[in-house]
Formats: sequence, structure tokens, C-alpha cells
Amino acid sequence: MSQATYEKLRRHVHDTAVLHSIDALLGWDERCLLPHAGGDYRAEQMTLIAGMIHERQTDPRLGEWLDELMQSPLAGDATSDSGATIHQVKRQYDKKTKLPKSLVEELTRTAVLGQQVWQGARRDNDFAALAPLLEKTVRLKREQAQAVGFRECAYDALLDDYEPHELTSNVAHVLARLRDELVAFVAAIRHAGRSSKIELLHRRYPVHAQERFAREAAAKIGFDFSRGRLDVTAHPFCTAPGPHDCRITTRYEERYFNCAFFGTLHEAGHGIYDQGLRADWFGLPPGEAVSMGIHESQSRMWENLVGRHRAFWQYFYPLAQEHFSEALGDVPLDDFYFAINDVRPSLIRVEADEATYNLHILIRFELEQDLINGGLAVADLPPAWNAKYRDYLGIEPPSDAEGVLQDIHWPAGLFGYFPTYSLGNLYAAQFFDQAGRDLGDLPKQFARGEFQPLRQWLIEKLHRHGQRYTAGQLVERVTGKALSHVPLLGHLRGKLGPLYGV
Amino acid sequence: MSQATYEKLRRHVHDTAVLHSIDALLGWDERCLLPHAGGDYRAEQMTLIAGMIHERQTDPRLGEWLDELMQSPLAGDATSDSGATIHQVKRQYDKKTKLPKSLVEELTRTAVLGQQVWQGARRDNDFAALAPLLEKTVRLKREQAQAVGFRECAYDALLDDYEPHELTSNVAHVLARLRDELVAFVAAIRHAGRSSKIELLHRRYPVHAQERFAREAAAKIGFDFSRGRLDVTAHPFCTAPGPHDCRITTRYEERYFNCAFFGTLHEAGHGIYDQGLRADWFGLPPGEAVSMGIHESQSRMWENLVGRHRAFWQYFYPLAQEHFSEALGDVPLDDFYFAINDVRPSLIRVEADEATYNLHILIRFELEQDLINGGLAVADLPPAWNAKYRDYLGIEPPSDAEGVLQDIHWPAGLFGYFPTYSLGNLYAAQFFDQAGRDLGDLPKQFARGEFQPLRQWLIEKLHRHGQRYTAGQLVERVTGKALSHVPLLGHLRGKLGPLYGV
Repeated sequence: MSQATYEKLRRHVHDTAVLHSIDALLGWDERCLLPHAGGDYRAEQMTLIAGMIHERQTDPRLGEWLDELMQSPLAGDATSDSGATIHQVKRQYDKKTKLPKSLVEELTRTAVLGQQVWQGARRDNDFAALAPLLEKTVRLKREQAQAVGFRECAYDALLDDYEPHELTSNVAHVLARLRDELVAFVAAIRHAGRSSKIELLHRRYPVHAQERFAREAAAKIGFDFSRGRLDVTAHPFCTAPGPHDCRITTRYEERYFNCAFFGTLHEAGHGIYDQGLRADWFGLPPGEAVSMGIHESQSRMWENLVGRHRAFWQYFYPLAQEHFSEALGDVPLDDFYFAINDVRPSLIRVEADEATYNLHILIRFELEQDLINGGLAVADLPPAWNAKYRDYLGIEPPSDAEGVLQDIHWPAGLFGYFPTYSLGNLYAAQFFDQAGRDLGDLPKQFARGEFQPLRQWLIEKLHRHGQRYTAGQLVERVTGKALSHVPLLGHLRGKLGPLYGV
Repeated sequence: MSQATYEKLRRHVHDTAVLHSIDALLGWDERCLLPHAGGDYRAEQMTLIAGMIHERQTDPRLGEWLDELMQSPLAGDATSDSGATIHQVKRQYDKKTKLPKSLVEELTRTAVLGQQVWQGARRDNDFAALAPLLEKTVRLKREQAQAVGFRECAYDALLDDYEPHELTSNVAHVLARLRDELVAFVAAIRHAGRSSKIELLHRRYPVHAQERFAREAAAKIGFDFSRGRLDVTAHPFCTAPGPHDCRITTRYEERYFNCAFFGTLHEAGHGIYDQGLRADWFGLPPGEAVSMGIHESQSRMWENLVGRHRAFWQYFYPLAQEHFSEALGDVPLDDFYFAINDVRPSLIRVEADEATYNLHILIRFELEQDLINGGLAVADLPPAWNAKYRDYLGIEPPSDAEGVLQDIHWPAGLFGYFPTYSLGNLYAAQFFDQAGRDLGDLPKQFARGEFQPLRQWLIEKLHRHGQRYTAGQLVERVTGKALSHVPLLGHLRGKLGPLYGV
């Protein structure tokens, strides 16, 4: 009896996933290929599919099936395929049906408008122009939190959309420890009196050579091009319109090596995760990514922990010198290695280095908690922002355009999203340390161009589980410890300390 | 009252069209970009969308709305936007609902299997391996014809899927006249003792130069790249996943000029038609193509009547010589012009020239009528095929692989499709003659690189009407005469006669 109901549920969710995958292709095509004039109709296509998905996700039959199945043995073990499917679908169904339709529509409308107004406000350096919409967004997000419910604070409900099951208090605790040590460490680097020759990275790197080299590296670390593609977009991303169809994008700057190369490693990291998920469960909880933070941990690991490792370049630097003989022919590996690991406080998050990046995130995370949980008014956001930049990074934005107006997230209604970037860095370091313990001398493997042991380890330890464990459970299961700031800080100190002599 | 019902109908058909456009994108992506391993899931995506489309097209509410609307003044004038919408949707609804679901499924299954078996049969030159499936297909197509009904013969019902409202007897009459004169004309060319230097077209044409030149020409004749794209596929085609998103494809052979260049002009012709349809009625009868034959008339016009015209090359040949200085630098225009208009009987339809092509079609059209209406058994197809090639083209296939097994159409269940290729040539010539009368000296315009008057004429006379007129009505309306073989034959004689001295 409940087996038949489970099959109905599975089929229903499967077809919804097919619609999701179609939406992914429509979105990918829009960003990569669509003729400019085609935008309006693409919006109609995506709206129709979104409506169908919403209807399926809130279908009352789903509620009936779930009521029955939650009582059945199939749901008994939440880490089994059937259990994970039932529990995750239930979570999503409850969330979706708790939100009044009028609120969803108001949130969507405000987000669309917010992004439009934000573009003008940033261009004109005019925070006041955005403030009323931001106030409305904050109010609506609070309503959203009240509607779906939360454990400790309203922000929990928003965080849950990106990092399911996670508590604000837990994230805040770990990130605060990271902050305290990182602020001091970055200050020490600033005052160390050493700096890399970053101008090396701004020599001429011909685009076709960059593309060949980036493809070579992505394939070498394990992105499977027989099941994926690499294309060009203004804002790089990774999407999977099918279980054997993962698409990453990048962007080439002739005068900046890092942009395409580390961007491609980053997206390839996301892609390796998507390709490591179980294809037969594509789009269903046992075959879906755990959380934004875990997804980000995979991209950051390949981009930073592997891709900025000295051993990685012992293998790749001779190849780089072949591809870019003009730019790098006369550059010693050590100079190059220091340059790609350059650390210096800066104003713009998306251009920040591996160490200071987390301070950019902390600032946003702390501010958005204050906005949502109360305590900070939108009007007071710019001075609060600037004060934190001064305190944590020792620099102050000369304008709101280079400060509080730089990110699209808040105008787009994405509250609770920012911390997943730093969670990604934390998870990555903690997993990477464990991989080193499990696999022996990783640097020696990298230096020989062997990346498959690490990739295979990630697939087995993380990817194959899909959503059968929460992020927190996965960290505990794989590393034997709760999430901690120690591995990330250890990694940063271990690499940057010697470079800067601090 | 009926206005409200009409709005419901229009909305319903609009959303179905959006699903169709999504299907078009899924198909385009599959043929242009999809990683090989992604094929199975793409089939699931397309099957889901196809099921949704079918459900919407046979929705009983549609039947109720149509019953009411067919009696209303909105349907009074079948050439008005509302009238065309109601009448065309009714036609489609009746056809779809008359076909039993079991027959549709059997047709689909047999077509899929037929294409698989055909690939092996062609490879192994083994007609007997395909014969049983072909017999089944013929039987099912006859059942289909009986189920949907027809005016004079069973073949009418199948032809109607590609050339709505057209009668087999009418097409047969015109094509028989064409055949009788063309067989003699082609024979005269064969025995004229002249031949072009076609080897010129097999010199080296660098692919990147071919691409630039093909784009330049497509844009010049009026394909709008701000609302379209040109990409690469093994089998070129044109599709429109949106009203401002028309995508054509081509294929480059370094050692054959015609392949990409005339292929691109052909697809650009299809694309110019799609781009000339009314965007605000995209996917609905007033904004949809009339028929396969009319669509083909637009591609053939730009490919052959314009693109193989001497005046076209008076403008383009100097540019071609710049792009391909190595291949064409020393070649006089007249030699090039003769080479691209070379006529010689050959075995393979898709490689045939402008004149003999129609005889390839006639053979298929005559044979498939005999198969469907009775009179020819599948087992007798190969000798019947070979006899006709001997009679019409004076050559005989040395094997079935180069004969009756060369096309995918019959194994795929596409009976009634072939004649639309020649209808396209006939319509094209008849429209082109009229355009010449309306617009003055077209060759003079072409020689100056002026193609917009012709394109604008086509948009106004044909494209803007969508399906408000049938193909037959359109021909009468635009040219004042019924469809005839005379313009096409006149065009071929006028161009090829002087070249071959016949």
C-alpha cells in the first residue's frame, strides 16, 4: 500500500525535477546564447515552467501521500533513499504551502523591482533611492520567516532556504571565532612589509591559450567533458540541465590571468560535485546537493585549496609557461605562486583574495542578521557597513557604490545567502584536512598531476550521499568533528604565514 | 460571451505555443550542443513536454469552446485573426481527437524502431531487413488516414499534415506536367556535351573564411542576427524557440564551397520567413507558417533563385574572391557561375542540383502514393524505384543503399512529406516571377547588393498573413493564378538553357 503511494510520490517528484532541469536549460541558454531581443519571450517560457513547478510542489495530493508515507516504514530511516526522499519532499511541501500566495507574489515583484532600482542606485551612488525598497524587502522577509516558522530567530528561517537545518547561532559562533583571529592575521600581513609581484598576472595572456589551458586543467582535476560543457558568460556559473549534462561557464580577460583560470577551477569544482551525484536519482533528494555551503565547499576546494597550492603548480607551471611563454617564460615559479596568493584588504567582495574574502562575508552576515532580527534600520546601513570595513579590514569605502551598494543579493531578496560562501570555505578546509589524513600525501600527488584520489574521495564521502545527510551531519560523519574555524585558519596560516613572514 | 470564450481559447493556445517553443529549444540544443551522454535525459524532457502539449491540444474544454466559437461572428471570416485562430485550432483539434491513442502510440513506436532498423539496413544494403517494418508503417499510415478522413484518397490525409488543405490530385497534376518537360530537358543537358568546371568548388576554402562569408551573405539578404543565431550541426536546420529568437545552422566542408554557403542561404531563407511572421501572434495561426511547401519556397528562393543568380554574384563575387583569394583569385566569374549551376543526374537526392532535384522528389511522390493508396507492395519497391531512376534520370542505382534505402522519411513514418520539397520550388518560382513584375528589375537590384525590396515584398505578400490563407489561396492571391509548373520550368530553361546551349 504505502509502496504504491511512494511510487506515486517518486514519479511526481521526478517529473517536477524534469521541469526544473528544463528551467535550468532555459536559464543557461538565456545567459550564454539567447539573442538580446529574445529576452521577453524567454521570461514567458520560464514563468510558465515556474508556475507548473509551483503547482506540482503544492499539489494537495502530495500532502495526502506525505501524510501516509511519514507513518510508513519507508520513512523510518531518514538517511535511506526512500526516507530522504519522503522527509525532504515533506520539508519542501510544508515550506511552500505555509507561504501565502499573496506573499510569494509580493516577494517576487519586490525582488524584480529591487534589482532594477539597485542598478540605478549603484550607478548613481544613491543609497537613498534604494532604501524604501530595501525596507519593504526586509519587512517581507520577516513576514516570510513568521509564515514558515523558525527555531531560534527569524533569520534561521531565511538561512534554511540555502543551508537547510542550520541554525544562525551555530554559524555565528564559528564565524565569530574565525573573524577574531582573521582580523589580526590580515592586519599582520598588511604590516609585514612584503608584497607579491601581482603585476605578473596582468601581462598579456592570449584568450585562446587561456581557454585551452583552463579546459586542460578542468579536465585534469576531473571535470568530465563527455558529460559537460564549458562556455562563456559575463557572470560565470554552473548548472546541470540533466544528470549527464553539467555546464560551467567562465569569462576571459586578456590582461588578467586569474579571472578565467581560477574561475574555471571554481566552476569545475561545482561541476565535479554535480557530476558526482547519483545520476539515477537526478533531481530527487538522494541525488541532489546538500546545501549551498556544501556546494561552495567543492568549488572553493578546487579553486583555492588545490588550485592555489604550491604542489598544484609544480605540476601545472611548466604547462602554463608553454601556453603563456611571453608572459611567464621568465617568471620563476615562486614569484608566480606568491602572486596568485596575494593578500590585501580591498573594497569589493568579488575581487577579494582567499583570506580577506571571509571578512567581506562576515560584515554582510552580521548586518543582515541585525536587519532581519531587528536592531538595525535600513537607513543606518551605510554607516554600519563602513564602520565594519574599517574595523575588520582597515579600509573604508569612499562611496556607497563601492560599499553597501555593491552586491545584488539584498535588493534581490537574498537574505541568508551570504554566509554560505564562508561556510563553503570552512567545510572545504575541514574536508581537505580529512582527505589528507585518509589519502596520505596529497601535495605529492598534486605535484605528479594526480587529482583522481581526491576527486574519488569526495565522490564517495560526500557526493554519493546526496541529501541523505544534512551539512552538519556530513561534516561530523566525514571528519569526526563539528564544524570549526580551526582547519580554515590553519590552512591560511600554513600557506600565507611563510609567504608574508608572519 | 463568445469574446470571453475566445480569450480563454487564445490563452490556452498561447500557453501550448510556449511549450512548443520550449520543445524547439530542447531540440535545437540537443542537435547543437548537448553532451553525448545527455541524450537519454533529453528524451525524457522532450517526452514530458510532448505529453503536456498533447494533453492541452486534446483538452475537452477546447472542444466545448470551439463548438461555441464556430457559431460566433468571431469565426465568420476565416481570414481574420480570430477566424483563422478558431478555424485552424478546430482543424487541429478534430485531427488530434480523431486519432485513437493506441494508434498514435503504435505509430510513434514503429517510427522510432523504423529509424533504428533503417540505419542498419542502409549500412548493410539489406532492404529485406527493413521491409517488414515498412509494411507495418504503410498499414498504420493507412489506418491513420481512415481515422482522420480524407476527400479523395487516403494519401490526401497524410499530405494534409504537411500541406494543409491540399489535394493529392492537384499536386500530382502539376508535378506530372513538370516531370514530362523536365525529363526531356535534363536529357538534353546530358547530351549537350558541355560541362562546368565543378572542381573549382572543391579547392581549399578555409572554414573560418567560409563562416565569415556565409554570415555576411545571410545578413545582407536580410536574416536579422539581433533576433537570431547561426551555429554548426551535422544536419542543418532552422528553428524558432521564440518570436525574436530564430536559429539556423550549417555545416562546413573545407573542400566544398557549396555546402556551407548555399546551405546557409537556404536556412536563412527559412529564417527570414520565421522572422517575418507576426511576433505578437507567435505560435498562433495568424503568426505561424502556412505549410511545409510555403516554408520551403522561402528557403529555395534565397538559395536558388537569388543565390544562384548571375546578378547575385555580380555583387558577391568580388567579396568571395577576397575571402577565398587562394581558391578563386584566378577564376573568372563565368566559370564560377557555371560551376554553382552545374546540372547532372545523380543518385542521391540531397546532393542533387536545382533541376534534377525535382525528379528525385517525383519518384518518391509517385511511389508513396502507390504504397498508401494501394497498387504497390513494399516488396516491389526496390525494382519500382530503380525503374523510375532509369526512366526519369537515365541512371540506375547499383545498390539499394544508394537507391530506395537512402532517405529516412519512410522508415520514420513521414509519408506525404516529400512533395512539399518540389512544391517549395514551384511556389518559389511563381512568387519570384510576380515579385519581378511588382518590383521592377530584380537582377539590377541584386547586382547592386539590394535585397531588401524582395525581402520586404515577401514579408508583406506572404509572411504577415501567417495561416490566414491556405497555400493555394496565397498563390492565387499573390500571383493571380493557380499553382503551375510553368514558372519553375521557365526559370530553369532561362538559366540553364544558355549555359548548356539547349
